[in-house]
Amino acid sequence: MTKIQNIGEQGLLEKLQRFCPSEIIGDDAAVLVTDPEQSLVVTTDMLVDGVHFSHVTTSPEDAGWRAAAANLSDLAAMGAYPLGITVGLGLPGDVNVSWVESLYQGMTECLQQYNTPIVGGDVVRSPVTTVSITAFGQVHPQKIIRRSAAKVGDAIVVTGVHGASHAGLQLLLNPEIGQNLTPAQKTALITAHQRPQPRLDVLPLLSTIFTFPRQIPIAGMDSSDGLADAVLQICRASGVGAVLDGEQIPLPPAFANWLTPEQALEYALYGGEDFELVLCLPPALAKNLIQMLDNNTAIIGTITSHPQVILKHQDEKIPDRVLTLSQGFQHFSQ
Amino acid sequence: MTKIQNIGEQGLLEKLQRFCPSEIIGDDAAVLVTDPEQSLVVTTDMLVDGVHFSHVTTSPEDAGWRAAAANLSDLAAMGAYPLGITVGLGLPGDVNVSWVESLYQGMTECLQQYNTPIVGGDVVRSPVTTVSITAFGQVHPQKIIRRSAAKVGDAIVVTGVHGASHAGLQLLLNPEIGQNLTPAQKTALITAHQRPQPRLDVLPLLSTIFTFPRQIPIAGMDSSDGLADAVLQICRASGVGAVLDGEQIPLPPAFANWLTPEQALEYALYGGEDFELVLCLPPALAKNLIQMLDNNTAIIGTITSHPQVILKHQDEKIPDRVLTLSQGFQHFSQ
Repeated sequence: MTKIQNIGEQGLLEKLQRFCPSEIIGDDAAVLVTDPEQSLVVTTDMLVDGVHFSHVTTSPEDAGWRAAAANLSDLAAMGAYPLGITVGLGLPGDVNVSWVESLYQGMTECLQQYNTPIVGGDVVRSPVTTVSITAFGQVHPQKIIRRSAAKVGDAIVVTGVHGASHAGLQLLLNPEIGQNLTPAQKTALITAHQRPQPRLDVLPLLSTIFTFPRQIPIAGMDSSDGLADAVLQICRASGVGAVLDGEQIPLPPAFANWLTPEQALEYALYGGEDFELVLCLPPALAKNLIQMLDNNTAIIGTITSHPQVILKHQDEKIPDRVLTLSQGFQHFSQ
Repeated sequence: MTKIQNIGEQGLLEKLQRFCPSEIIGDDAAVLVTDPEQSLVVTTDMLVDGVHFSHVTTSPEDAGWRAAAANLSDLAAMGAYPLGITVGLGLPGDVNVSWVESLYQGMTECLQQYNTPIVGGDVVRSPVTTVSITAFGQVHPQKIIRRSAAKVGDAIVVTGVHGASHAGLQLLLNPEIGQNLTPAQKTALITAHQRPQPRLDVLPLLSTIFTFPRQIPIAGMDSSDGLADAVLQICRASGVGAVLDGEQIPLPPAFANWLTPEQALEYALYGGEDFELVLCLPPALAKNLIQMLDNNTAIIGTITSHPQVILKHQDEKIPDRVLTLSQGFQHFSQ
């Protein structure tokens, strides 16, 4: 297998150029044309081998797909359509060239769904494989989705099931679990982890249910750090609270055969990396939106003035619960 | 000293927010307003501890300054004015929080000269300190500077001395050398290494010497990888060659007391990281440009049709020499 140290930085860059539009290569920076009247939206993510992906659970294709999807999801969460991404790669010299090509293959497979090019990058030597992606998109200023725009009375919409990505990861890490799942169910959960879809498809639907210029701001973010985190962040940024109905949170059908209701809810609330959108909008418009999406979309709660996020159950014997970030992931904690 | 592992990612992000404009913080992505009619320019760089900077020669402030300057220089090399940068940071948990704050301090000191904000970022755990910067700028499509636009007969202009950054690095690595330099000369060379200036100041001058819309494209790039590399890259991209006059290359005055003429020329051609602009434009306009800049600006040669870069000397006893990239830096070679 050819190693990077055998072909050098220049040799690797030449191999990676086939993943980039040829008219963009070869200058100090890439030039992109933006639409007038649109605002530029920028987001960045860094992924480190052994911290954010691992050879056990992630092929290079999947690592590439997931890295691209996470950044496109951040754009979708702002209401923005992607223009391009840059990729910074730090690589040990003994990494196989084919590994890097597969990483780029996975990235471009995800990006090509949205005609989004890789417009630039940097390849450097590093003791640990590191992928740094910056994505650019554009959005009309009146179509920006912000965390801070939630209003009391808004319905809280989720665009898909939650908990599937975490379940898929658990199945990859512990192949002995989930014995009573069908092979198709296992595959679906693992695919949810390996090939998450950024919900850019929701943006044109939002445009159809609002008149333009939009008078009512939409609040929202993506659920990359978990559904509980998304609702809590929106409430904190908007100075509001929320009441969630635990029964309404869409779950993967396979959970019914496998997890207790309490476990399923923990996966959905704190699992993370589902990359769905969590949106707050007036109830009538929320109903319009979910009619245009599939059955996994639901109104899961309501924005309230009381600054807490309370999870209720239809079963009155289960007490209400105040959600916190305490189960959230702290990158640096030991 | 407080370590990152003591305050966690969230604690560190809160400390770093003071380096970012408050209106930009707190969403999935940053929103920037671009001018209509301008193209977006994007460039990215990754820097790894022990590969691109070291605790021996680089304080965190200087590492931050240099990282920001390198990216702004890439924008200047395209003719673009900066809009903002994003910063991805990979950090071991035992890095001091003050080190990271100093890194950001150095970045913002460089950026503030050009009113350029840090508009986003990511902080993750990593076994090795890694800094990934993506810079965005804008340029009118008719003012883009490209490597591929050099024409036979163009004068080759450099906007400043070359070799100073490499000399400064040598003085930092080997304090015993340069004994016959004055303290002021040493400081000047070390500053050239630690605090390079992106040549964004040249862009408005280019606008004044050309009528707009500009009929004549300007070729150019920055000399971050060395002056020889810049001329060779421009010639390769433009399908031309060049003849350089070795005597015309501006050198730091201190070199006369310290290096042989041959050594001085090697530093200038292959030292790298001077972050000057190397521009190709018609001779009359080149003369106008250097009159507006300081004495360290010079016409160092001419673009030719013969596809080689030849270095000539006024001393006819020294034979002409064909420049190659062979002395260039190969990141992955052992």
